[in-house]
Order: sequence, then C-alpha cells, then structure tokens
Amino acid sequence: MTAEIITIGDELLIGQVVDTNSAWMAEKLNEFGILVRQITSISDDREHILNTLREASQRAEVILITGGLGPTKDDITKTTLCEYFGSTMVFSETAYEDVRHLFRSRGLPVTGLNRGQAMVPECCTVIPNHNGTAPGMWFEKNSVIYVSMPGVPFEMKALMTGEILPRLESKSENAIMHRTLLTEGIGESFLADRIESWENQLPSHIKLAYLPQPGIVRLRLSARGTDKKKLGDELQKAVDGLLPLAGEFIFGEGDDTLEEVVGKLLREKGCTLATAESCTGGYIAHLITSIAGSSDYFKGSVVAYANEIKEKLLGVKPRTLAQHGAVSSETVKEMAEGARERFTVDYAIATSGVAGPSGGTPEKPVGTTWIAVASPLGTVTRKFILGEHRGRNIQRAAISALSMLRKIMIEQSRK
Amino acid sequence: MTAEIITIGDELLIGQVVDTNSAWMAEKLNEFGILVRQITSISDDREHILNTLREASQRAEVILITGGLGPTKDDITKTTLCEYFGSTMVFSETAYEDVRHLFRSRGLPVTGLNRGQAMVPECCTVIPNHNGTAPGMWFEKNSVIYVSMPGVPFEMKALMTGEILPRLESKSENAIMHRTLLTEGIGESFLADRIESWENQLPSHIKLAYLPQPGIVRLRLSARGTDKKKLGDELQKAVDGLLPLAGEFIFGEGDDTLEEVVGKLLREKGCTLATAESCTGGYIAHLITSIAGSSDYFKGSVVAYANEIKEKLLGVKPRTLAQHGAVSSETVKEMAEGARERFTVDYAIATSGVAGPSGGTPEKPVGTTWIAVASPLGTVTRKFILGEHRGRNIQRAAISALSMLRKIMIEQSRK
Repeated sequence: MTAEIITIGDELLIGQVVDTNSAWMAEKLNEFGILVRQITSISDDREHILNTLREASQRAEVILITGGLGPTKDDITKTTLCEYFGSTMVFSETAYEDVRHLFRSRGLPVTGLNRGQAMVPECCTVIPNHNGTAPGMWFEKNSVIYVSMPGVPFEMKALMTGEILPRLESKSENAIMHRTLLTEGIGESFLADRIESWENQLPSHIKLAYLPQPGIVRLRLSARGTDKKKLGDELQKAVDGLLPLAGEFIFGEGDDTLEEVVGKLLREKGCTLATAESCTGGYIAHLITSIAGSSDYFKGSVVAYANEIKEKLLGVKPRTLAQHGAVSSETVKEMAEGARERFTVDYAIATSGVAGPSGGTPEKPVGTTWIAVASPLGTVTRKFILGEHRGRNIQRAAISALSMLRKIMIEQSRK
Repeated sequence: MTAEIITIGDELLIGQVVDTNSAWMAEKLNEFGILVRQITSISDDREHILNTLREASQRAEVILITGGLGPTKDDITKTTLCEYFGSTMVFSETAYEDVRHLFRSRGLPVTGLNRGQAMVPECCTVIPNHNGTAPGMWFEKNSVIYVSMPGVPFEMKALMTGEILPRLESKSENAIMHRTLLTEGIGESFLADRIESWENQLPSHIKLAYLPQPGIVRLRLSARGTDKKKLGDELQKAVDGLLPLAGEFIFGEGDDTLEEVVGKLLREKGCTLATAESCTGGYIAHLITSIAGSSDYFKGSVVAYANEIKEKLLGVKPRTLAQHGAVSSETVKEMAEGARERFTVDYAIATSGVAGPSGGTPEKPVGTTWIAVASPLGTVTRKFILGEHRGRNIQRAAISALSMLRKIMIEQSRK
C-alpha cells in the first residue's frame, strides 16, 4: 500500500512555517508498512488543490491532507474537497458537538466563525476532533482513500493515532522494517570508510542510509518484504555485524535521545545529576528536563553566564579565572566540582566555551569549548573544537557533554 | 517569476528528518518576489526524480533541488541529473579544490568517497561549496533554471546566500511584500473576531493569514504588485489600522522573537536579568542565551528542579514550600526575589508549574503554572492554566514569562 501526503497552506510556501506534520505522518505510515511516495506542499489555491489531488490519486492508494481547515478566512480546502468529490456542504452535528464541547471546557463562548467549522461535504465520514474545532474528514473514491485533517500538529496527531492509523493498518499487506542506530563522536565519511566492508555485504533488500544532524550521525537500515519475522531477524543479523566495527560510537537506537539514554542510566544506577553551564546557557538542563520524570534524578543547574556567578554560586576561585580564563580546563573542573558539591549530586556536568559569533581570540577561537564531568571517582575534562555558528555550537556542546557523561557512567559501572 | 523546490531523500519520506530547508528557501525566494508554487519531497529513486523534474519544469521557471549529494552510497541524484540533461560526468577541479581545502583545514585526510564528490555533469556550472564536500550545480535548459545543492542546512544556506540568490535576484520583476505582526496572549478565533471589520476593509491585493504556534499567533499581510514603494505604503496603512484594535497583543514583527525583543529592551535600559526556573527547566535561559551578545545583560540562572535547591540556592523559605507548595504565588515570588538578590540584577523571572504528564492534583492539575517577575519596583506574580502536554507547557510558560517581563519593563519605562 502506498501513500502520499499533501499539506496545504501559503504559510509553507512563503516559508513562515516548517512542515513538521509530514515527517511525523510519514514515520507513522512507515511503521504500518505503508510506503510514502511523495510529500507535496501547495498553496490555498482551488485549482492547484484539485490538480494535486488528481495527480496523487494516480500514484497512491491513500492520500493524507493536512492544513487549510482553521476558523479564519484564509481556508478554502474544505469547499474545494467538496467540489472534488462532487458533493454539497451540510451541517454536521457530530462536528459541532466537538466545537461546543471544546469551548465549554475552556469556559469560552462559541463564535460564528467556529460554528461554520461544523459544515462538511455530505459524502465524507466525519472523524471527531476532540482537541480542536476543525473535524477530520474521510473520503473514498475509486478505491483511493482521502483523509483531510487540520494542520495544528497535536490535533492532527490525535486524529491519526486515535482513528486514522487503526483504520489504515488493517488494509496494509507489505512490510517495511527499519532499525536506526544512533552514533556520536565520528563524522559521516569516516564512519562510511570504517563500515564499508560490512555495508557491501548487506542483502539487496536491506538498504542503508546515513542521516547526519549536528553532532550525531544516524544509520538507518530498511528491509522490505512480506514476512515481518524474517525481516526482523535479518535486520538483527545486520546490526550484530555492525557492532564490532562501530559499536563504540553507538549510543542508542530509533527515537532515543542522548538525554533519554543518560536519564535511563542515572535512574538505573539510582544516581543524581546537576549541571553548571556557561556557553550552553541552560540548554543541557532544558534537554534533560524535557524528559518526563527527570525530576527523579535531575536536581538542577546553575547557568553561570557572568564570571562573578561562576565564583559566587559555583565556588570557582577568582585566581583560576584570572590565570586560565573562563574557557579552560581548570575553570570547568571547578565549575563541575562546585556544582557536584552544592547540589549534593553524584554527577555534575560543566561547560564553558566561546559560542560565538564574537568573543574569539587567536588562542581561543570561536568554537573552543571545555567540558567537565565530575563523578564519585573524580573529574574528567576535555577540550572540543566546534564550529563557527552559535546555535550549532550550543547544540554540539550539549551533545558532547551528555555523551561524555554517558561514557563515564558506563566505564564506572564496569569497575 | 515562479519557483518550485524539490527535496530528495528517503529520510524525508520515512519521516526521520523534518524538511526545514524548504521553509528557509521559500522565505528567501519570497523576499526577492519569487513565488514558490510547490514544494515536493521524493525518494532517492531515479525514475521519480526524472518525472518530478519534468513536471516541475512545466510549472516553474526556477527549480531548486536539495539533498541526495552526500559522500555515501545512498545518493543517486547527481547521476540522475546528468541523465536528465543528457550530459556526461566529468571530474571538476573547482569542486575538488573545496573538498581538499575543507579536509586540510580540519587536519583530516581526503577519502576515496570524498574524491568522488568532485565528479559533476559536464553541462553544469559548479557553484563552489566552501562548507562541505558536495558542490552546488547550476543548469539551464529551455529557459528553466535548475540548481542542485547539498541537503545539509548550513551548506545549502551558504550557497543560497552567497551565490544563488544574487544570481536569481536580477531576473525577477514582480514584487511580493509581507508584514508579519506577532501577537501573544490571545487565541486565533478571538483575535479574528476582534479585527474582523478591519480585515474586511483590506484592499483585494492584500491578503491576511493567521499563523498560530504555541503561545503565539502571527498575522501575516501579503501584498502583490509591481511597485514596491506603493506596496510598502499600503502595508503600512493596513498595519496602522490594526494597531488600535490589537496593538496590546503585538510584541514584535517578522522574525522577531520574544527573547530578542526582551534582550533589546534590557540593552536599551542598561538593565540586567537572571532567571530562577523550575518547570521551564532552563528553557528560558536557553532562549535568552541563544541570542548573540546576551552576556551583556544576562547574568545567569538557577534551575531549581528540586525543592532543596529552591531553598539552598534561591533562599526560598522552607515554611513557604510547606504551607503553599512549590507551585504557588508565594514560592515563585521568593524564587524571583532570591534570584534578583543573588545575581545582583535589575530583573528576575521565576517559574514553577506542573509540566506533566504526571504530578497533577485536583487543586493543581497538569498545566498549572505560576510565574513571577521581580523588578526594581516590586514583584508581580501571575497564574497560568496551560495544557496537558509537557513540551508545549514548557514552551508556553517560557513565552508567557518573557511576555510578562516585557510588559512590566514597558510599563515601568512610562513611569
């Protein structure tokens, strides 16, 4: 079974909104063995919508449409869908019930605009949207399924998870299985050289892709066939062959994040963590606390952006700062040890670097970053030479810091 | 002049990468008055690439292609482009110079894979890529311009900004101008009701769109025509008409962010800031420090995730926590005042809330959030009822906190 995704909205074509919906939908469809052939973004334009629907219906059996259903006047998707299916607009009590319920629960009055959202093409099945005012709509025509959903991500996700994916799942036959291994600490081409012999021996129905992002390269293995059990075994065999070549760089799999992996390790060991952040400015604390339940192992952070705060709240010695500067092994060591003591935790991470764009010197150019991890067995510091871009430097420093902590925790478990 | 964007890569179609490149490119093209008609994501598949190129060339005069040019084996874009233009692959010294330079500057050896990246179709103009190993390629055929670029965002952006946009700019005639006003503190449908009369009086060549994102609704006005000066005046008139109706909710324009707006205010007033964060977990500090130069006004943060840290590092009284709980007006007030004192700053923000998914009680359900702003003229606290989703609650709490600070700073300037 193949699918296409159509996202509607001028905001995508003028670049004011990034299309995150499509990636999410594509991932979910893939998990059910539904292959996404194409993702198309078009404007709120009647003729373009009609053409795109016609073209997609010739390539795919399932067409998922998002966007163009909000309460305001820039939305013409619904009437165009009505025209495409040769239907007429009718008032839907089911859809209106959701609108009324939502506004009641928020203690708000229903506006005239919102009442209009309960109008739908007569030929569709209304998929109730309990999180918003625009209903989902399910159409079938010439053996092709069309589903229209609002563009607000969490409304679309609830509709997909609760109603649409279960309905589609039963109709799929082919299987696509993926295993994605997450590596850190090695660039794409070095990794490729290192695992070339293994890659060349993969069966032809297993495909390898390199997916780089700042600080991380993901290796995705995709296997196609009909027998899920067999594909799963073959993928496992492929992964087993990869581990001796690149295992040291692999920190997780699939949707794992370093902050989750580190959180899980801390929880398993019953240990606690704090951070002392200069150049990362709270980003490591943010990553860690974005994980639900992190309060079980994370006590907090001092973001010590000013040097006086490094002294006052973390106990860094004025002499250390004067002799070695804020971006130095000595300073991050004292920051990490100060945080470990003040927060009464087992592990503390500290960062100090020149994030840029200004602040670089010949000895410490932009990108120079020191990271320390203080642990029950002592403190380790390491220097990283990152890039020239502030945002990416913050990201990469955070990933490097979490990775250092992970490796130290694993080493210490072995002792 | 019209354009289409084609992004190539299985990673988009299986949803492991979000296509941020297209939004960025679309925005830049729009600024030069080039209308993007469609964005299409397809897989690394020869036939699909050929078909998509053919279709796009019938609708648009400029086709920008990203992705499918990495050093590893999952890339077939380049040979398919070569086939599409009926050309042959040749070794490019220009492209190889970039590869060699990049590896030399990093002190790394050039691998065989990387040498292969200097092979290009003979008919193309090589656009040097100083940030990576895959060159940009410029093709022209039957009055249509095709540009192929690597998919790594910062490599693509450097190629676009440095080479491709300047070349395209001179060829465009029509103008599209946008003004985007950023609102906070009011939902989409309430805003729409409030400004309906103004919206109905807009000239027909000025279009309004509502672009909601967590905590913020953006209002985009787009005017099309040929006379840039005239369009600019008309947009200004439209904005002037909007201000009396919704001015109180507008915090900025265009790409402004609240953290930038707040940073600018602090800089103008010569004031300093610190944060004391519980539920936002360092996210406010991260937003503020993502702005270059923020060390001029931001001294740091205490992320006090554990209650003992609220006491120890911020001076919150044990009695306050015992009597009122961590999520209370009393606690955030003491957190903000403690931070203001300890960091010796003019303003301090504090947050404490139930981010979720667990931790809610009947009196304080998930989403309950208290925010305080301590200032030279005293401390203000406010309660917010956010939603049920941890990630969005963190985002919305941060936006609400920055917005509170902004309003308080503006009020105090008036005094």
